[in-house]
Amino acid sequence: MKAVKKTKVGIIGATGYVGVELIRILSMHPNVILTHLVSQNFVGKSFSDVYPSFRGICDLPLTGEGPEAVAADCDLVITALPHGISSKVVPVLLSKGVKVIDHSGDFRYRKPAAYEASYGLIHPCPELLPQAVYGIPELYRDKLATASLVANPGCYPTCSILGLAPLLAKKIIETGGIIVDAVSGISGAGRKADLAYSYCESSDNFKAYSVTMHRHTTEIEQEYSLLAGVDVCITFTPHLAPMKRGMYATIYADLLPETKDMTAAEIRFLYESYYADDPFVRILPLDTAPETRFVSYSNYIDISIFTDSRTGKVKILSAQDNLGKGAAAQAVQSLNAMQGYPEGLGLSNLCGCL
Amino acid sequence: MKAVKKTKVGIIGATGYVGVELIRILSMHPNVILTHLVSQNFVGKSFSDVYPSFRGICDLPLTGEGPEAVAADCDLVITALPHGISSKVVPVLLSKGVKVIDHSGDFRYRKPAAYEASYGLIHPCPELLPQAVYGIPELYRDKLATASLVANPGCYPTCSILGLAPLLAKKIIETGGIIVDAVSGISGAGRKADLAYSYCESSDNFKAYSVTMHRHTTEIEQEYSLLAGVDVCITFTPHLAPMKRGMYATIYADLLPETKDMTAAEIRFLYESYYADDPFVRILPLDTAPETRFVSYSNYIDISIFTDSRTGKVKILSAQDNLGKGAAAQAVQSLNAMQGYPEGLGLSNLCGCL
Amino acid sequence: MKAVKKTKVGIIGATGYVGVELIRILSMHPNVILTHLVSQNFVGKSFSDVYPSFRGICDLPLTGEGPEAVAADCDLVITALPHGISSKVVPVLLSKGVKVIDHSGDFRYRKPAAYEASYGLIHPCPELLPQAVYGIPELYRDKLATASLVANPGCYPTCSILGLAPLLAKKIIETGGIIVDAVSGISGAGRKADLAYSYCESSDNFKAYSVTMHRHTTEIEQEYSLLAGVDVCITFTPHLAPMKRGMYATIYADLLPETKDMTAAEIRFLYESYYADDPFVRILPLDTAPETRFVSYSNYIDISIFTDSRTGKVKILSAQDNLGKGAAAQAVQSLNAMQGYPEGLGLSNLCGCL
Amino acid sequence: MKAVKKTKVGIIGATGYVGVELIRILSMHPNVILTHLVSQNFVGKSFSDVYPSFRGICDLPLTGEGPEAVAADCDLVITALPHGISSKVVPVLLSKGVKVIDHSGDFRYRKPAAYEASYGLIHPCPELLPQAVYGIPELYRDKLATASLVANPGCYPTCSILGLAPLLAKKIIETGGIIVDAVSGISGAGRKADLAYSYCESSDNFKAYSVTMHRHTTEIEQEYSLLAGVDVCITFTPHLAPMKRGMYATIYADLLPETKDMTAAEIRFLYESYYADDPFVRILPLDTAPETRFVSYSNYIDISIFTDSRTGKVKILSAQDNLGKGAAAQAVQSLNAMQGYPEGLGLSNLCGCL
Repeated sequence: MKAVKKTKVGIIGATGYVGVELIRILSMHPNVILTHLVSQNFVGKSFSDVYPSFRGICDLPLTGEGPEAVAADCDLVITALPHGISSKVVPVLLSKGVKVIDHSGDFRYRKPAAYEASYGLIHPCPELLPQAVYGIPELYRDKLATASLVANPGCYPTCSILGLAPLLAKKIIETGGIIVDAVSGISGAGRKADLAYSYCESSDNFKAYSVTMHRHTTEIEQEYSLLAGVDVCITFTPHLAPMKRGMYATIYADLLPETKDMTAAEIRFLYESYYADDPFVRILPLDTAPETRFVSYSNYIDISIFTDSRTGKVKILSAQDNLGKGAAAQAVQSLNAMQGYPEGLGLSNLCGCL
Repeated sequence: MKAVKKTKVGIIGATGYVGVELIRILSMHPNVILTHLVSQNFVGKSFSDVYPSFRGICDLPLTGEGPEAVAADCDLVITALPHGISSKVVPVLLSKGVKVIDHSGDFRYRKPAAYEASYGLIHPCPELLPQAVYGIPELYRDKLATASLVANPGCYPTCSILGLAPLLAKKIIETGGIIVDAVSGISGAGRKADLAYSYCESSDNFKAYSVTMHRHTTEIEQEYSLLAGVDVCITFTPHLAPMKRGMYATIYADLLPETKDMTAAEIRFLYESYYADDPFVRILPLDTAPETRFVSYSNYIDISIFTDSRTGKVKILSAQDNLGKGAAAQAVQSLNAMQGYPEGLGLSNLCGCL
Repeated sequence: MKAVKKTKVGIIGATGYVGVELIRILSMHPNVILTHLVSQNFVGKSFSDVYPSFRGICDLPLTGEGPEAVAADCDLVITALPHGISSKVVPVLLSKGVKVIDHSGDFRYRKPAAYEASYGLIHPCPELLPQAVYGIPELYRDKLATASLVANPGCYPTCSILGLAPLLAKKIIETGGIIVDAVSGISGAGRKADLAYSYCESSDNFKAYSVTMHRHTTEIEQEYSLLAGVDVCITFTPHLAPMKRGMYATIYADLLPETKDMTAAEIRFLYESYYADDPFVRILPLDTAPETRFVSYSNYIDISIFTDSRTGKVKILSAQDNLGKGAAAQAVQSLNAMQGYPEGLGLSNLCGCL
Repeated sequence: MKAVKKTKVGIIGATGYVGVELIRILSMHPNVILTHLVSQNFVGKSFSDVYPSFRGICDLPLTGEGPEAVAADCDLVITALPHGISSKVVPVLLSKGVKVIDHSGDFRYRKPAAYEASYGLIHPCPELLPQAVYGIPELYRDKLATASLVANPGCYPTCSILGLAPLLAKKIIETGGIIVDAVSGISGAGRKADLAYSYCESSDNFKAYSVTMHRHTTEIEQEYSLLAGVDVCITFTPHLAPMKRGMYATIYADLLPETKDMTAAEIRFLYESYYADDPFVRILPLDTAPETRFVSYSNYIDISIFTDSRTGKVKILSAQDNLGKGAAAQAVQSLNAMQGYPEGLGLSNLCGCL
C-alpha cells in the first residue's frame, strides 16, 4: 500500500466564521496537516484563545505572517479574506508555487468587467482569472484536479446553481423570469460586533436585505448563463432568518411549451441522473421539502422538485449549510479534488443531527 | 359627553394562540367586557391556569358552553375554531342575534364551490356566505359597519392582499405570473404537542411546507381577482422560520408594458395614496425592507416597494405579526368597525419593541 | 368627577432597552404625556427612526437637550443613564423642581462608602442620598408618595429582594450563607454592538459572568440587611441565558433551628400575607415553579417556595422580566405612587402571552 | 503493525436524542462498525428516514429485534432505553456474551435500595449491580478496561461529579451544605411531542423543574459519598434554558476551617493535578467562566474555580454537552476504554465551533 502524501495547509483569515469551520473540518481530516493560521486581529493569541471550543484540539498560534512566509511551509493555502484583499495576497502565494483556494469574490468571475461592475473595484490581476477554477466540484471536477487557483463560490450561488443546473443544462425551462428567493442564517453576515446582528435585535426576526441588488446576483447569472448557453438575467432576493447556520433557496422558473407537461417525478429523475456521481447532492423523495437542519454542519445539499400545473411553473427548493457546502466544507471538497484524494475524505460522515 | 356603550364579548376557542392573543388585546381594550371563554379541552380550569401570564389579569373560567348559552350574555362572539366546526356554531350564534367574527376558513369564500374545493367539505350553510364580510377593514370598512358576520382573513392572505392591492386595483401589473413567497413564525402552526414544532426540531431550522398547494392560495386568489377585475391565479410557497411570531411576504409581479418604467418612488406614492386613511398600513421609506420584529405584538403591517429595471419586475415586501394583523388584532380592528368605535381603539399603541 | 392631572414626562437616555420599554409602557399610559426624549447618540432622528416598531406610535424627536431644558416642560423626568452620568444630571433636574426616577446605581445606596466601594467612584452629591427613595413600591410605598427622587433598583436586586423579604423580615432564616443564583436574558447587557452578545455567539449558549463580584451584590446586601436588622453578606452568581428578556433567581437559605420544621405551605402562607396588598407579586401555588415567559412584558414577579427537609434549606424561586418589574415597568409603578395614581395604572393588564 | 480489531456495535433505542448522537459519533469512529439499530417505534423505516441528516451517512434499517438477535452479531451493545426497560434487556445481552453500555438509571446504583427509593421500582436483577461499572472514565478507568456492563452516568451527575471530585477526594470542603444549581438544554427532555417543549412554549423561557426532588440527586450523592468517604447529602435544583444542547452546573461548597484561605489559584492547581491524565477535562484559566457553546458537540467538560473570601465559599462551574460528555460521547469514551482503544479515539477532535 502506497503511503498517501499528506497536505500541509495554511489558512489566512483563520478567525472568521469560514475560518473556524475550515479548522473544525480540517482538524478531523486524515490527510491534512494545519501548519499556519494567520489572523491580523489576533496576532499573539492561539486559535483556541479566540475559539475556546478548540482547547486541546487546535492550539496553533495566530500569526500576522505575510503570504511569503506562509507559502514557505505549505502545499496549499486557503484564503478567507475580504474581496479586494485576496487579490493582493493570492498572486504572491501562487508565485511561491503553492496552490490556493480563495473564498472571496475576487477570482469568481470569468470577465474582469463583471467583477468590476459588481464589486466596484479595478481587478489588480485579471491575468489570473483564466486559470481560476470556480470551485463547485459537481460542475468543474475535472478542472479542479489540475487547478492551482480555486475560487470558492459564494454561498447563495452554490445553492442557486446546484439547484437549477440540470434544468438549465437540459433546456427544460425558460431562461427569462427566473426568481431565486433565498434565506440565510445569521453567520452569513460574518463575525463582527454589529447591533443589527446582536441577539436582541436579530432573534425572533425575519427580513429581506440587499433587495435592490446583492453581489451574488451576477455570480449566479454567470454560471446560469454558462449552463444555459445564453445570457441569463435573474431576480434574486436574499433574506435573513434567526438561526446560526443554514441557507435555503426557493427557485421559480417557467417550463417551456414543450416541457410544460413534465411531472415532478420526471424532473426528479433527470436530477438524479444529472447528479448520479455526486454523493453530496441529495435529491429528496417527491413531496418532501428540504430543511436546513438536515444539512447543518455537513457538506450536503438537499434538493427537491415541485411542479405547478396551474401556472406552468417549476419550484426547486435547495438547502445547505451556508458555512458547509456554502463555504468551508465545499472548499475542503475542492481540496480533495485538487490533491487527488477521494472527494468525500473527511466530509462524508459529517452532519449535525440536532 | 355621551357614554359609549361597551361591548360584551365571548370567545369560543379561547385557549389556542389566536384565542390568547385576543384575550391579551381585549383585556386592555377600554370598550370591551369579556364575558365568556369557551375551551372544550380545559373545562373547569380558569384561563390563567392554562396561560399563567394572565394570573390577576384574566382569571375567567373556561367553560364548555354551547353557542346558545354564550349568546345569551354577549353582544358579539369571536370564534377561533377549526374549519368545519365554525360553520356549525356560527349559525346558532347569528340566530340568537349576536354578531360574530369567525377565524376559520368557513365564511371567507364568496362561492361555496371555492370553499369546497379548498377544504374538501360540503358547506353546511352556504346561504350565510353572501352576508359574511371579509374582515380586512382597509378594503371593506363600509361593509363592516353594518356586518353581523365577519370572516377574519387567513394570515397569509392578509399580508398578500394588502401587499398587492394597490397594484392590482390600479392595474399596474400583469395579473399572470404573480408569486407570493412567504414565511411564518411557528405559532402559525397552532398550539399543539407535535414533534415537528418542538424546540429541538424547529429551532435553527428553515423549511418550506405545503409546497404543492396551501389552502390560503385560493383565498388570496379570490381577493386578488376581485381587486383586479379578472381571474388571477398565483404561485404561493409558505415557509417556516424559527421564531414565535411574525409573517413575511415577498411578492413578485411583472410590470405592464405601459408601466414598466415606473420607479419605486412612483409606486410608493401610489401606495401612500391608496392607504392614506389606513393608519395600520405603514408604507416604509424607499430602500427600507420591513422586519417582522417591528410589527410584533401589534396590528401594523409594514410594506416596502422595490423595482428591478433589469427584469421589469416589482417586488413588494410586507411584514406583519401572524397573530396580530394576521389574526387577532385585525379581528379587534373589525370589532371596532362593527361597533362604531374608532378603528384603532385599544390597538394603536400596541407594539413589542424588542 | 374631578379631572385627573396628567403628568408630563421626559426621558433622558431614551434609546437604550430600558428607554424603549419605558416608552412602550408610557405610550399606553392614560395619565402620562411624553414631552421630551433625549438621546445623545441619535440627535436629529425621531424615536421611531431608531425603533421602527414605533412608527405612528411615538415619532417624537430625539434631542440632545440638557437637563435644564428638559425640566422646563416636565413634571417628572426618568433618567436611564450610566452610573456616574446620572449623578451629574439628576441634581440639575431636582434643582428645577421636577421629580426624578433614576435607573442608575448612583442613588441606590444609603451610604456613599458602599456606593464608592462598589462603583469605584467618588459620589459627587452624597447630600442627595438621604432623600432618595429606593423604588420598590412593595417595600417603600409610603415614602414614594412624597418622593422627589427615586432610585429605581437594579434588576437582580428586585427579584432577589422581593424573593426573600418575608423570610428576612419575619426572621425565618439564617442570615448567613444565603445564596442567590440568578439568570438574565441578554437584553440585560444593554443595547450595544458587542460580539459577545451577537446572535451567533450567544444563542444556544449558557454561561456565568462576573462570578467573583457583581455590583448588584452590595445592593442586595443593603436591602437584605435592612430587612433583617443585621448585616447580611451573600453569595451571588449571575448567569446569561439565550433569551431576549427574563430574569430568574433561585435563592437558597437555611431555616433556623426553630423554623426548620416549617412546611412550604406554611411559608407560602406567610408570603401571601406579607404581599397581601401587592397585586404585582404573585405567589404561585405549591409545587409550581415560575417561568420567565409568564412575566414577560409585564410588571409581575412570580414567586414560589420550596423546602427541603433533608437539608433544612428553603429554596425561593422568583421570575420577572428584567426590563419590566426589573426596570421600566417598576419605574412606572413608582411613578404612579409618586403622582397619586392607582399603582397599577397602565400596568395591570400588560403581559406577553407568548 | 498489528491490525486493530474493530468492534461490531448494536444500539437498542436508536432514535432518541442519545441514540442519534451515538450514531453521529460512531459513524465517524474508525474502529466501530454499526451492525444493528433497534427502535420499536420506527420498525421498517431506515435510520435516515427518521433523521434525514443521515441520508447517505447511515441508512441502516430500524428493527424491532429482541436482544438475542442483536447479540448474535455484536461485540458490544449500547442500550438507550427508559429505566425499568433496560433491566429487562441487559441481562439477556450479557448472557449472550456481549458487552453492554447502558444509558438508563437501572445499573448506576451500588445498592438496590437506593435505586428502588429513587425510581420506585423493585430491581429485577440486583445480582448484576456489583459487576456494573459506573462509566466515568476519569474515575473508573481501570475497571472499565475489564467491564462487561457499564452504567453510563446521568447528565447532571457527570458534570456535578467531575466538577467537585477533587475537592471531595482531597477533603478541601465541608461535606454538608453542598448546593448544585444546574441548567440543561431542552434536548435533555428527550425526543417527544410535548407542548411544554414546543418551540412557542419553550423558547425565550427559563424555569426550574423537579425542584423538590430530581432522581439524579441520589446518583450524585452516591458518588460524592464514595469520593468523600462519608455520606453526603446535597441540595440540587435543575433548570431548563432555551437551547438545544448544553448543561451547566454552578456548585457551591464551604471551605473547611483549615482550607478557608486557599486561593482559587491553589485550588485550580489541585484540579490540574487531579485531572492531569484526563484530556477531556479542561480546567479553564483563572477568572474565566465556562460557556456551554464551547463544549457543544464534543466530549469535553470545562471547569472553572472561584473562591469568595467574604463568605468562605468555593464556587465550581462546569459545562458540558448534555448529549456529549453528559451521555453519548462519554459512552463512546467508555467503549474505547473497554475495547482497549485510545480513550480519545473518534472523540478528541469533535467540537461544534459555532
